[in-house]
Amino acid sequence: MIEITLPDGSLKSVEKNSTPMDVAKSISEGLARNVISAKFNDTTVETKTPLTENGSLILYTWNDDEGKKAFWHSSAHILAQAIEELYPSAKLWVGPAIENGFYYDIDLGDATISDKDFKRIEDKMLEIARGKHEFNMRAASKEEALSYYKDKNEYKVDLVDNLEDGTITFCDHSTFTDLCRGGHIPNTGIVKAVKILSVAGAYWKGDENNKQLTRVYGISFPKQKELTEYLELLEEAKKRDHRKLGKELELFTFSQKVGQGLPLWLPKGAALRERLENFLKQAQKKAGYEMVVTPHIGQKELYVTSGHYAKYGEDSFQPIHTPKEDEEFLLKPMNCPHHCEIYKSSQWSYRDLPKRFAEFGTVYRYEQSGELHGLTRVRGFTQDDAHLFCTPDQLDEEFKNVIDLVLYVFGSLGFENFTAQVSLRDPENPDKYIGSDENWEKAEAAILNAAKDKGLNYVVETGEAAFYGPKLDFMVKDALGRQWQLGTIQVDYNLPERFDLTYVGSDNQIHRPVMIHRAPFGSMERFVAILLEHTAGNFPLWLVPEQVIVLSISEKYEKYAKKVLNLLENHEIRALIDNRNETMGKKIREAEMKKIPYMIIVGENEEQENMISVRQHGGDDLGMIRVEEFSQIIKNDINKSLKQF
Amino acid sequence: MIEITLPDGSLKSVEKNSTPMDVAKSISEGLARNVISAKFNDTTVETKTPLTENGSLILYTWNDDEGKKAFWHSSAHILAQAIEELYPSAKLWVGPAIENGFYYDIDLGDATISDKDFKRIEDKMLEIARGKHEFNMRAASKEEALSYYKDKNEYKVDLVDNLEDGTITFCDHSTFTDLCRGGHIPNTGIVKAVKILSVAGAYWKGDENNKQLTRVYGISFPKQKELTEYLELLEEAKKRDHRKLGKELELFTFSQKVGQGLPLWLPKGAALRERLENFLKQAQKKAGYEMVVTPHIGQKELYVTSGHYAKYGEDSFQPIHTPKEDEEFLLKPMNCPHHCEIYKSSQWSYRDLPKRFAEFGTVYRYEQSGELHGLTRVRGFTQDDAHLFCTPDQLDEEFKNVIDLVLYVFGSLGFENFTAQVSLRDPENPDKYIGSDENWEKAEAAILNAAKDKGLNYVVETGEAAFYGPKLDFMVKDALGRQWQLGTIQVDYNLPERFDLTYVGSDNQIHRPVMIHRAPFGSMERFVAILLEHTAGNFPLWLVPEQVIVLSISEKYEKYAKKVLNLLENHEIRALIDNRNETMGKKIREAEMKKIPYMIIVGENEEQENMISVRQHGGDDLGMIRVEEFSQIIKNDINKSLKQF
Repeated sequence: MIEITLPDGSLKSVEKNSTPMDVAKSISEGLARNVISAKFNDTTVETKTPLTENGSLILYTWNDDEGKKAFWHSSAHILAQAIEELYPSAKLWVGPAIENGFYYDIDLGDATISDKDFKRIEDKMLEIARGKHEFNMRAASKEEALSYYKDKNEYKVDLVDNLEDGTITFCDHSTFTDLCRGGHIPNTGIVKAVKILSVAGAYWKGDENNKQLTRVYGISFPKQKELTEYLELLEEAKKRDHRKLGKELELFTFSQKVGQGLPLWLPKGAALRERLENFLKQAQKKAGYEMVVTPHIGQKELYVTSGHYAKYGEDSFQPIHTPKEDEEFLLKPMNCPHHCEIYKSSQWSYRDLPKRFAEFGTVYRYEQSGELHGLTRVRGFTQDDAHLFCTPDQLDEEFKNVIDLVLYVFGSLGFENFTAQVSLRDPENPDKYIGSDENWEKAEAAILNAAKDKGLNYVVETGEAAFYGPKLDFMVKDALGRQWQLGTIQVDYNLPERFDLTYVGSDNQIHRPVMIHRAPFGSMERFVAILLEHTAGNFPLWLVPEQVIVLSISEKYEKYAKKVLNLLENHEIRALIDNRNETMGKKIREAEMKKIPYMIIVGENEEQENMISVRQHGGDDLGMIRVEEFSQIIKNDINKSLKQF
Repeated sequence: MIEITLPDGSLKSVEKNSTPMDVAKSISEGLARNVISAKFNDTTVETKTPLTENGSLILYTWNDDEGKKAFWHSSAHILAQAIEELYPSAKLWVGPAIENGFYYDIDLGDATISDKDFKRIEDKMLEIARGKHEFNMRAASKEEALSYYKDKNEYKVDLVDNLEDGTITFCDHSTFTDLCRGGHIPNTGIVKAVKILSVAGAYWKGDENNKQLTRVYGISFPKQKELTEYLELLEEAKKRDHRKLGKELELFTFSQKVGQGLPLWLPKGAALRERLENFLKQAQKKAGYEMVVTPHIGQKELYVTSGHYAKYGEDSFQPIHTPKEDEEFLLKPMNCPHHCEIYKSSQWSYRDLPKRFAEFGTVYRYEQSGELHGLTRVRGFTQDDAHLFCTPDQLDEEFKNVIDLVLYVFGSLGFENFTAQVSLRDPENPDKYIGSDENWEKAEAAILNAAKDKGLNYVVETGEAAFYGPKLDFMVKDALGRQWQLGTIQVDYNLPERFDLTYVGSDNQIHRPVMIHRAPFGSMERFVAILLEHTAGNFPLWLVPEQVIVLSISEKYEKYAKKVLNLLENHEIRALIDNRNETMGKKIREAEMKKIPYMIIVGENEEQENMISVRQHGGDDLGMIRVEEFSQIIKNDINKSLKQF
């Protein structure tokens, strides 16, 4: 008998050589039906691997990330078999599971795969799946492995060449064999739905000097319904792609001449961004923050002091030299060193603290061009940054106040669904961290306390703290259920030390302040991108570029339309007018495209009655009302989403 | 007889060998009394130089820059003589007139000059001046000049060595002789008042490898009263020095670690700057501008296209390289290329124009460390920039609108005293300029028209236009009578060409738009500096960091003081509170130092009556009034200076 520890800490005695599936069955038939992969003592195993010693076992179903990984890894085998059967001259390289699905890289020889071929590949995969073939792992010597692939597949020969003898395993299923480290679902029959998503070129080993292979992307599911839902989500995500919406709504653009990854904010985007900034500024003012402005460069020495040069120096934008004088500057990768220097420019007493310096500071970090993506991955971005300098005793309250601010921001922008992660230090590795034990304990207690106190839905990750302090990150779920890391709040003992920041305590002695870094949006660029995808461009009314468009039924009512426009502007409503000589149908369609929340239609009736007809984006009709009534509707709408901080 | 043309175009026949002074006398005795120097055919001459041919003559008095130059140049001779008499071992190098006064560089040998010696140097100079010695120019061969200085003064020997034989002249007055190109006042007696201002070290020939000489700075005047006024002005300017005030009012700071010439805006300065920006933004919005946001770097290629690389490339911050990929970026020295790329990101019809893109864009230009000065000469500054793209036909009206905006800005900030300069192209050098004759004529006519139409007090400078277009610059006079160049409006045909910007005209053909560059403030840094010196830190009420300070007579009234503070804040008045346990005298003195416009004093009477006692900065007492009345006073004050645009 051996002792198996389960994730809930319970122990199970089973016979030696029992498999994970046996353990599942011993717990419940239902679990056994759903288990598709397992980990034993932190190592991925098959569900039919005999367990020969005491240890801890985790059983995964489709609902776990590890379960999906095994599912998609196994599906990649099925894809490879299908390809081999359909394209006999194809040579396989590798095919891993990825975040959503899997791919396989293949040298197709003279053959090609286009979207017209997707269906027959899918059909072939489903045919294989229906065979309910088991995946069988077996060890092989390097010699065996080499001789198996010799003259058949130079890519696999190269792979084997780089493996150590004694570590090589194959996986067989049906008539197909592949080099494989393991981690499969019990049999192919569990795969009920399959979709080939795309084909792309991919250099062998990612090196552009090598031959270009064909990468076939696919995804698979245990139920047809799930595939259908996923494809709908993909469709919706495409529609909501912030790069597409950003163009349609004229928010931002990129110029090859200015440089990739360097967004140019167009008037509507700049105005939207400014509204977001003003919204946060207002809340920050109430919370006792003070705005500062600092330059976008600093001497290299500044970042050597802060430690940022060690982190970003070699991999980021290189130093800027001056023509005379031997000076070196860097584009700032972070605002903190500048704010530390502002703190240092005065002397502080404990009575002056906390000081809260905020800046919409634009920072620059190099990213490889292949990594750039719209506004979510850029080379220059503006952080809604702030640094709070406080005494250790104030940390608790300050941290709670920051959480309040972050929650207010999320709430005002319609992110209702979020979780938090508290990252603490690894108590087994105290040398990895700087700062006294006492301060760490205080800081960790402050964060945990604050998270509890504020009723956050949070997880604790031990060992995930930065070396300079513990932190709290917020993950929001968007309308499509995708997770995004947004706001972060970090405690820092490192920079006050490095910059020798001090204050005079009530004991008249010199003390070290604690620093909090925080950014509720994260960056303006990334936040606007996520907000675009979350709202599909239907921004909250207080934020949207244009709140109202006035459509005149014909040129005859142009004058009245302008009068209405003026009235709206007097009520501080952002409105524009469409007086073109077009059909009302076309005007409404275009206003819908622009996602303007309200359309006001004016014609003979409206002019005579001195009223307006209002139609909401999406089709709802509010009927004929007075401008004053409408203005009240708008105000109520805004007050509903934008609460007072 | 010869014919002399005077500046007003009139002709005067005088005998050959008449001197400029003779001509002056022939015009009026009064003029002759005041003439102190002259130019004949664009060459500086003495007032007693015989005129031997027809030509044009300008006579200068103390009121002309050229007159002052001769006065101060002659004073430098007197200083040099005084030094030689007081310090027999002194060796002179050179001593020019400068913007305000003159200096002389001297090798004093073992002697030193400190501020304690200034009086006796001044006395000696005045003694020499009273001798009414004439300045006599005489030519000398190089051999004579060398033998004169040989073994006596190696600095002058070096000077002579570098001169060409036949061009060397000496000037004698009293017992003193100096190498000199000429341009003196009639005699030393005109100098009635003298002040040695400072001594400093100066390397021979400005090369730090050479010996350091002593530079003695002085200034002189034709009347004692003028010296007194000048010294008072200097005193006042010192008090108003924006670097001093900026520190006292906690507006900005510099950090050696961040880098010299890179201002860090402290909370009060950042808030002030934001108010200035919002003020301009609001006016710009009404004038149809749209804000954009662009990055602080761009590919080098962008600035090669714009021509800025040719202008700033080698002498400014050097290119930024990337770790991988072969890309080169530059810190942007100007915002125009980015705005051109924004224009280019869409297609425009004549119906869409003008487009007016505005940005508070921070730019970076390298300046040598010795050139840096507070906020007026920095390495990074934020331009209140905008670029207007219009059709040639719209230029006239657009230009006028920009003037209106600039005048509104100046008016709201208390700059009532300003002049304008219209810079046109040199019609004799058409090749220096780009763009068609027709467009130049249109643009120049537009500017001249606009300047006339708006009733500007302007001068026209032919040949001062930029190569890409004519422009209008504004010079403001500050409270001390000093001139500052502030706003600029420039017409540009060059960038639309270089960036191939187009629009579709009403003729359905492709046309080139015209661009206007404009910046009413110039830069936020420079403008705040000038405003600080102009107002001595007493900013207009709408702009000042804190409008009101509430002073409680004792701790007993702290609660009432806070109530008043809340009331003020409800009235959107920026107020703070001083509840310290200090004497009222000290609290008032400190509030005066901080230049807070209004002090509110609260004690027993005030609390009982539910009123406040108001005292203005500078001492005026407004007596006991209600907060509502006070709020109305503030509102009226603001409305007086800050008119609606």
